[in-house]
Amino acid sequence: MSMPIAFNAHASRLGQPRPESMTDMTRPNLTIDPARLWSDLMETARFGGTPRGGIRRLALSEEDRQVRDWFRATCEGLGCTVTIDDVGTMFARRAGLDNSLPPIAIGSHLDTQPTGGRFDGVLGVLAGIEVLRTMVAAGYVTTAPIEVINWTNEEGSRFAPAMLASGVFAGVFTPDDALGRLDREGIAFGTALDSIGYRGAVTHRAHKLGAMFELHIEQGPILEAEDKTIGIVTGVQGARWHEVTVTGQDAHTGATPMHLRKDALLGAARVVAGLNALAARPEHSGTNASVGLLEVSPNSRNTVPGSVFFCVDLRHPLDARIDALEVDFRALLAEALTPLGLTWEEACIWSSPAVQFDSRLIDCVRHGAARHRLPTRELVSGAGHDAAYIARVAPTTMIFVPCAGGVSHNESESATLEDCGAGTQVLLEAVIDCDQRMNGV
Amino acid sequence: MSMPIAFNAHASRLGQPRPESMTDMTRPNLTIDPARLWSDLMETARFGGTPRGGIRRLALSEEDRQVRDWFRATCEGLGCTVTIDDVGTMFARRAGLDNSLPPIAIGSHLDTQPTGGRFDGVLGVLAGIEVLRTMVAAGYVTTAPIEVINWTNEEGSRFAPAMLASGVFAGVFTPDDALGRLDREGIAFGTALDSIGYRGAVTHRAHKLGAMFELHIEQGPILEAEDKTIGIVTGVQGARWHEVTVTGQDAHTGATPMHLRKDALLGAARVVAGLNALAARPEHSGTNASVGLLEVSPNSRNTVPGSVFFCVDLRHPLDARIDALEVDFRALLAEALTPLGLTWEEACIWSSPAVQFDSRLIDCVRHGAARHRLPTRELVSGAGHDAAYIARVAPTTMIFVPCAGGVSHNESESATLEDCGAGTQVLLEAVIDCDQRMNGV
Repeated sequence: MSMPIAFNAHASRLGQPRPESMTDMTRPNLTIDPARLWSDLMETARFGGTPRGGIRRLALSEEDRQVRDWFRATCEGLGCTVTIDDVGTMFARRAGLDNSLPPIAIGSHLDTQPTGGRFDGVLGVLAGIEVLRTMVAAGYVTTAPIEVINWTNEEGSRFAPAMLASGVFAGVFTPDDALGRLDREGIAFGTALDSIGYRGAVTHRAHKLGAMFELHIEQGPILEAEDKTIGIVTGVQGARWHEVTVTGQDAHTGATPMHLRKDALLGAARVVAGLNALAARPEHSGTNASVGLLEVSPNSRNTVPGSVFFCVDLRHPLDARIDALEVDFRALLAEALTPLGLTWEEACIWSSPAVQFDSRLIDCVRHGAARHRLPTRELVSGAGHDAAYIARVAPTTMIFVPCAGGVSHNESESATLEDCGAGTQVLLEAVIDCDQRMNGV
Repeated sequence: MSMPIAFNAHASRLGQPRPESMTDMTRPNLTIDPARLWSDLMETARFGGTPRGGIRRLALSEEDRQVRDWFRATCEGLGCTVTIDDVGTMFARRAGLDNSLPPIAIGSHLDTQPTGGRFDGVLGVLAGIEVLRTMVAAGYVTTAPIEVINWTNEEGSRFAPAMLASGVFAGVFTPDDALGRLDREGIAFGTALDSIGYRGAVTHRAHKLGAMFELHIEQGPILEAEDKTIGIVTGVQGARWHEVTVTGQDAHTGATPMHLRKDALLGAARVVAGLNALAARPEHSGTNASVGLLEVSPNSRNTVPGSVFFCVDLRHPLDARIDALEVDFRALLAEALTPLGLTWEEACIWSSPAVQFDSRLIDCVRHGAARHRLPTRELVSGAGHDAAYIARVAPTTMIFVPCAGGVSHNESESATLEDCGAGTQVLLEAVIDCDQRMNGV
């Protein structure tokens, strides 16, 4: 059993960042095999593969069991010890030179959306396996152990909410919270876990990580638009959801003159357009402000809508900037709706604080990309990831690679062999760099 | 059998309108009984009455049969002959002094919306019965026959489209068109007609009307807002429906920066707000422009909408004014959507031309209201009515009375005994006035 020593306890070992040339002098030249990684991606895409080229592999389903069995067998074949924790998360551990050190982890998830793609989550886990294979093939052993992690139920499609097992690991949820969650058919998470044979004995509390890296497709269009290969992810945006119900009065479109209406859709439309204009103001630059869900009632062609419900999604890397936008948004509601004789109810129903990734790990990623002269771009993840929770309990960061058109959560999700390979090479470099910086060369 | 002589053939008999005082000198002082009318309204509201005080009396249902039986028995009790045409429309005819003249009709409908109120349509038919009762009680006989008409399937809730039987009468649809229409359970109009025993032998082609008056609740808020009792209806607005599908691209709300989005809902919101601004321009005054139905896809809280469908409802008493608004609306689509990188498809899927009611009949209504010093307001119906079709084949007009809040097609629809009574008194005056003007005193 590894001693539960946190990264922070080792911070002093890091000292000042070494000059890149010095670091390079002490580094092996390991090169991952992009074709081998791609082969794993395509092989595992069979587990839950859909006719349209995507994957349907809901958490703790039979397809999830199949890919888990493959993951275990593959990692054991590479000399790893695979343990399972009490919410089904799989830890494939390759011993290091000093197994009293907390492991350096590479983690993501093998579950998918109901009509998911072949890269979201899967790339991060299989890249971890490719890193292991490369080290094994070269006979290279890290100082600290390496762990490749498959977090259970990241998507949240079968058991809400998302990132459930990494949330348990981070202490956001208790294991019992997770085990009691029901899917739409009323099957409990714990029952499903037992039925595929993946309820483990290890409790997360005894399991410390020295660091975690997560490689992921961007799920956004920025890298592709700017022709960059590697996204150096510095954190995760804060996000908040506000629900708004606008109330006016149903009325006949023909019989009700414009000045006697209380048109809830007109009010909502002014808010949607006004929110977009707010986000374009200089003081709100960098904010993502969206209305993705909007429902009209009674939604009849010849009835002025008496009620509209919509959900506003506000994101920014800094929580304080979301605070500021919320103030202006609430003022917008009053400005847009009051003159139309409309009333409204508004509430913040979900808030996810901004996450700042570990600057030392970010530096490892930056150096890894520089080593291979890969075009990079720093960005902040807009989507949530297991890494966002793990950052609460261990030094963590992420690496992004482009996906076509920024499309994700879709069977047409796509990324290139070259980009996946480049991301995995940077992952390998960053892990070795981190191990060397943390644990001495 | 009455000779099929149209109103126009009698136009020469009308001559110049008589001075009001002269008209009044030759008029009986007949007074309807508002309480008796109200009693009929409440009694027939039992046929399909709902717990919440409305009526569910779909066309050709068992409840429709019950109210039809009541209508027939009541009218026969007043000495009328009741005939049924080939699409179930009921004509209760009281003989006049000269039965070779085409009848003066009072018509509306006894079917309701699925959760309809107690006044929409019903008032117009029962007011006709109250007019008959008043004449019978006073021993007053008109020159031309009087017909009270119950048009089949005005609402169109069970068998689309609305105003089906009056449309057949006006030659807009053939009887076979109507008889073949299916409800949602696949039952044909003709089958339903047979099953309640209301398929008649009379063909509409042999049935001419000298005039038709329809009393109806306004279904809008104008009379109530302006504290008027009688709406002098000069026509029915032209109406057109345009369907628009806006296409952008689904994208993650967190991962997609504002400048890389193609947000279909933002585009649609600008169109909804822009259409309202267009209608407020001086050149489009008097236009009703509405979006009542709007659907967002995929309608997910954290997805920038890739597609929005909506339906635009444009109305004005003059078709040419709708033409002009359409030109500006199409320009608005381009202005609002192109800068956002959106594409769109737009089509006019329904057009109902404006109707101008008969100026002589309008004058009869005006004089009837003046006789009782009732506050009036001229207006154009925003909703469709049987009268809109009948105006194509006979001189026609309507009388409106206020309904609370302008609310209709709703179980809470409400009108007062006093207003219903006032409207029925004006109806009686107008029918007598019309008979005198058309057919001599």
